Amino acid sequence: MSEIHHIPVETLRQQVTGIFRNAGMTAANAAAVADVITDAERDSCKSHGIYRIEGCLRVIAAGRASPDAIPRVLEGDTAIIEVEAKGGFSNPAFEAARATLAARARKLGLAALVIRDCLHFSALWHDVEVLAGEGLAALSMCPSYAFVAPAGGTKPLLGTNPMAFGWPRPKDHPYVYDFATSMVARGEIELHRQAGKPIPEGWAIDAEGHATTDPEAALAGSMLTFGGHKGSAISTMIELLSGAMLGEIMSKEALEATGGKAVLPRHGALILAFSPEVFARRSGRDPLAEGERLLQAFNLQGARLPSQRRFAARALSLEKGVPLTTAEVDRLAHFREHGLRGLET
Amino acid sequence: MSEIHHIPVETLRQQVTGIFRNAGMTAANAAAVADVITDAERDSCKSHGIYRIEGCLRVIAAGRASPDAIPRVLEGDTAIIEVEAKGGFSNPAFEAARATLAARARKLGLAALVIRDCLHFSALWHDVEVLAGEGLAALSMCPSYAFVAPAGGTKPLLGTNPMAFGWPRPKDHPYVYDFATSMVARGEIELHRQAGKPIPEGWAIDAEGHATTDPEAALAGSMLTFGGHKGSAISTMIELLSGAMLGEIMSKEALEATGGKAVLPRHGALILAFSPEVFARRSGRDPLAEGERLLQAFNLQGARLPSQRRFAARALSLEKGVPLTTAEVDRLAHFREHGLRGLET
Repeated sequence: MSEIHHIPVETLRQQVTGIFRNAGMTAANAAAVADVITDAERDSCKSHGIYRIEGCLRVIAAGRASPDAIPRVLEGDTAIIEVEAKGGFSNPAFEAARATLAARARKLGLAALVIRDCLHFSALWHDVEVLAGEGLAALSMCPSYAFVAPAGGTKPLLGTNPMAFGWPRPKDHPYVYDFATSMVARGEIELHRQAGKPIPEGWAIDAEGHATTDPEAALAGSMLTFGGHKGSAISTMIELLSGAMLGEIMSKEALEATGGKAVLPRHGALILAFSPEVFARRSGRDPLAEGERLLQAFNLQGARLPSQRRFAARALSLEKGVPLTTAEVDRLAHFREHGLRGLET
Repeated sequence: MSEIHHIPVETLRQQVTGIFRNAGMTAANAAAVADVITDAERDSCKSHGIYRIEGCLRVIAAGRASPDAIPRVLEGDTAIIEVEAKGGFSNPAFEAARATLAARARKLGLAALVIRDCLHFSALWHDVEVLAGEGLAALSMCPSYAFVAPAGGTKPLLGTNPMAFGWPRPKDHPYVYDFATSMVARGEIELHRQAGKPIPEGWAIDAEGHATTDPEAALAGSMLTFGGHKGSAISTMIELLSGAMLGEIMSKEALEATGGKAVLPRHGALILAFSPEVFARRSGRDPLAEGERLLQAFNLQGARLPSQRRFAARALSLEKGVPLTTAEVDRLAHFREHGLRGLET
């Protein structure tokens, strides 16, 4: 039985930051990437937590991510703020541009952040939660790898294309959702394959486009979107708005660019920020108070809000420390002392 | 057997316009409402076609819609264009503001249209299709009546909250989706009730919040969203962005305002317009050509695009006339000659 160690959140953050500094990242880059990884681990969002450190180190070691990229913010004079990530991770690019984005949204009512040429591995909830914390509503989306077939199609054309939304709550954690538009994560199908178990109907089709419950056939075929043709339409919108519209690559090119593997390609990301204060100005109503009426009614009838489980995990981590297994603690120590050295390639 | 009459599209448009002129609408108001109704009938989108004429006449007769409202466009100097519908239908308000919205989106890259205090009965695809025809991507949403429970909830709090998206295609009809975020339209459940047939699982819950296949219990309980907790999250976002954020009423208030009936309340609507040309400017890529690569790949593998059936019906209607039954033709003639007079109240 593995022992559980409770590491204070800020201790973990310093350790992760140190690992990335040792890998050649600038202080700003290391801090931004360590923040999203530490915050995810803190929130028990394990798929985007410290598990991601190794992947980040490997793309740096392979020369595919620039650890010392200095993001360049192009403020312009429109409702669009652009930031060139220059082949670095998306997170420092977002950090470099977020104050400009927030100021522009407060001035114009809404503004868009376009992140160009970035490596994107992190959960989208982090950015929209940050913006919601500044009193802004935010909608974030990006393409990924084309593992998903459109409704009625037979071959992968769409990514698992995540979408996240944040809404500010004055006295509470913001309302935040963040999900892939695929029915499930690809890793779920892989887990079924490893366990030798069939997958439920509706998750995937085989290489000929027929419904399948065989995880092998699913992995060789296409995943499906959530919500049938409606989910497929939303995923298509994400390809068009955060791929085609930005002039950045779409999920099909992303997969081709990496030789068919789900390693991080360089693509774009789109974040829309809205100022409820500016939008509601002429109405005489308080938009956040209106939002509270709805969200509190959810809770009154026992409906859980999308990030409630994550916020509960956060509270526990902040009180008791982040729970890590001995294997995880050892892995962190290895990365701190040796980086990737001594690990399988 | 009912005979089918083929009425030229423009003849139908003139007839519908005349009906609304007779009901006291200004020329601009009658034209805008007649356009969305005629275009829906032309596209075989029967639920939003001439069937809607009677409802429009009734809300005017009841004094709940202003037939002679003159929409007021507030251009401002932000990315938000506001238009006060002044208790008229949403369509003339959109028409009054669309050129300003398009110009602002071309100038700033993106802009939002806020329609205030309108009666909204029409399909959202019409507005996003118009904007896509002008080379803009558009995302439209509005609240409706609270007939839908959130995921994990027991009582209605959300509307059937539609969302529509349009993307311009230089040599083809735009890419357009438009759907309710409820699993099905309320009318579908009503049809099952009338036929004495059970509804599929997942459509609704009863008044105690338990899953039900009984249409009576469903109508007395709550509908569910499409796509489980993901669809519920999107529906919630629509309440927050197009209700709370605008300082306009949300679906729960809308239903309360009409005494629990699905008659048109006065609420707001939100339409975002994006200029792909401005967004892609620095990329050196043609965003619409990129979009074509994706959408043509859909067609190559036989995946139907969301509005393809509608565009096919349109082509037939433009060639042969809009197919109407004798009963429909007679009803139109009655409205033309007598308005609501002689009909049941």
